[in-house]
Amino acid sequence: MEDRYPTRKNPEPVWMERPVPVLYPGHRTPSPLSAEQAGQFDRDGFLVLPRIYSDEEVRVFREEVERLRLDPEVRASEKTIREPQGDAVRSVFAIHRDNPLFARVAADERIAGVARFLLGGDVYIHQSRLNYKPGFKGKEFYWHSDFETWHAEDGMPDMRAVSCSILLTDNTTSNGPLMLIPGSHRHFIHCVGQTPENHYRESLRKQEYGVPDQASLEKLAALYGITEVTAPAGSAVFFDCNIMHGSNSNITPFPRTNLFYVYNHTGNAVQEGLRTHPPRPDFVAESKNFTPLAIRPERFA
Amino acid sequence: MEDRYPTRKNPEPVWMERPVPVLYPGHRTPSPLSAEQAGQFDRDGFLVLPRIYSDEEVRVFREEVERLRLDPEVRASEKTIREPQGDAVRSVFAIHRDNPLFARVAADERIAGVARFLLGGDVYIHQSRLNYKPGFKGKEFYWHSDFETWHAEDGMPDMRAVSCSILLTDNTTSNGPLMLIPGSHRHFIHCVGQTPENHYRESLRKQEYGVPDQASLEKLAALYGITEVTAPAGSAVFFDCNIMHGSNSNITPFPRTNLFYVYNHTGNAVQEGLRTHPPRPDFVAESKNFTPLAIRPERFA
Repeated sequence: MEDRYPTRKNPEPVWMERPVPVLYPGHRTPSPLSAEQAGQFDRDGFLVLPRIYSDEEVRVFREEVERLRLDPEVRASEKTIREPQGDAVRSVFAIHRDNPLFARVAADERIAGVARFLLGGDVYIHQSRLNYKPGFKGKEFYWHSDFETWHAEDGMPDMRAVSCSILLTDNTTSNGPLMLIPGSHRHFIHCVGQTPENHYRESLRKQEYGVPDQASLEKLAALYGITEVTAPAGSAVFFDCNIMHGSNSNITPFPRTNLFYVYNHTGNAVQEGLRTHPPRPDFVAESKNFTPLAIRPERFA
Repeated sequence: MEDRYPTRKNPEPVWMERPVPVLYPGHRTPSPLSAEQAGQFDRDGFLVLPRIYSDEEVRVFREEVERLRLDPEVRASEKTIREPQGDAVRSVFAIHRDNPLFARVAADERIAGVARFLLGGDVYIHQSRLNYKPGFKGKEFYWHSDFETWHAEDGMPDMRAVSCSILLTDNTTSNGPLMLIPGSHRHFIHCVGQTPENHYRESLRKQEYGVPDQASLEKLAALYGITEVTAPAGSAVFFDCNIMHGSNSNITPFPRTNLFYVYNHTGNAVQEGLRTHPPRPDFVAESKNFTPLAIRPERFA
């Protein structure tokens, strides 16, 4: 298969225009989004659905999150990633497989139905995780396009995936919210340099390779500005796989906990031939099971 | 002299109420602030004066800042502090002594006149610096009360000092602006633990000692909330010496450069008996020259 996005192979950064749609046709009516919401996602590369989970549902999710954070088995698991300094849990991966509650959330029509609409057909989970982003010591996450990584390290052929973050705490401008460059999803910026061996172990803690160059970031920020995604707990944030995003640190006492699901179109499943390295572990990037998600309406409280 | 604020001496954090005024009487009319502005500083512990320096003056300041950043002598000086990782300049100290332009700014009536009003009499510069806070890699600065440090490490007897930051770039919510807890200046929180030898060398790069405990920060944030100080270039931000403040990192391409002056009342000059260690170097904290500043109206363009 042809590699349309040969990133990490050039000594200089390369810009290319996105050759594929953002909003894919193919979804049967009725649409879960208004025309305005769909147009907004197409134009900006992200969309916030405020408070689609009730306070009571958020409470249920947070109790489970807290249980996992303290569970010795979860803490000891290789699927659990720590903060760069210290022992605090940063993320727990593969919650759509390992956790019955968060597996149901993954297939909930309120979010999975939106993903299916945006991607124009059946979807599966490429990656899922629970992010704690604790208060006081939450570290920054440098700018990146998720697709750049998923393509180079996982072999995802094209831009037909979308991330959904369910906020379990209020996200304000001060507690290290998601920052993104709206419109950047229409450009693909090849990163300079090669992927080190076992890159995922470090990159999930602290991003150092596969990062865009400063000149490209300056250009993108000048073109489009930077948007901070602020929303109350219970909201869902959808963002395109190729949007440039990151977050600052969080010294406030307020954590920024979320559930994070990556939906990929079943026709866009990862392929061995596209990655230059052994695949990342299966809990970071699904490499075998591309069965379409059985989407259904759920209630959690 | 009695030590009213015996911080860093208890194994547990201690809260005490501020025993002295925030807004000191004694200034001759006319007031440089409106009654509303003065009341705001008294209540919140900070005050923003938007755009008191013109675009042209900001341009003059920025040119000088850039010249200093590239000056080999300045780069090599012990008064220049680097970012925790890497070679980028973080701060240049004692600009009110070493730099003719920034010495004039220090005594400019637009800011020094306000300091004299707030502190109710003659003032001198306890500390000055130029902060680059560069884009992409600007690191966070953890919560602290400046007075806690100036008292414990410099021997400043009481809370009769005010900081003034002149913004040379726009400060937005996304580029790591000053965050403070309005109202926190009315409490003094004793920090736990002792001051290490030569603490200043590390603390100016990365704060690890003399920091408030997390429970106290949670309590303050719950009582008063957290305010981000956002303002355009050319604005001045005044904040009380004892207000709890800090800032998150800055991964945006937009630097957050400012000139920073600490005004202390001449009756509140530092005293040897109050500090338990050898004094910090004179470029960090004035220890000899408490001559009142000769305040005059200036124009820089």
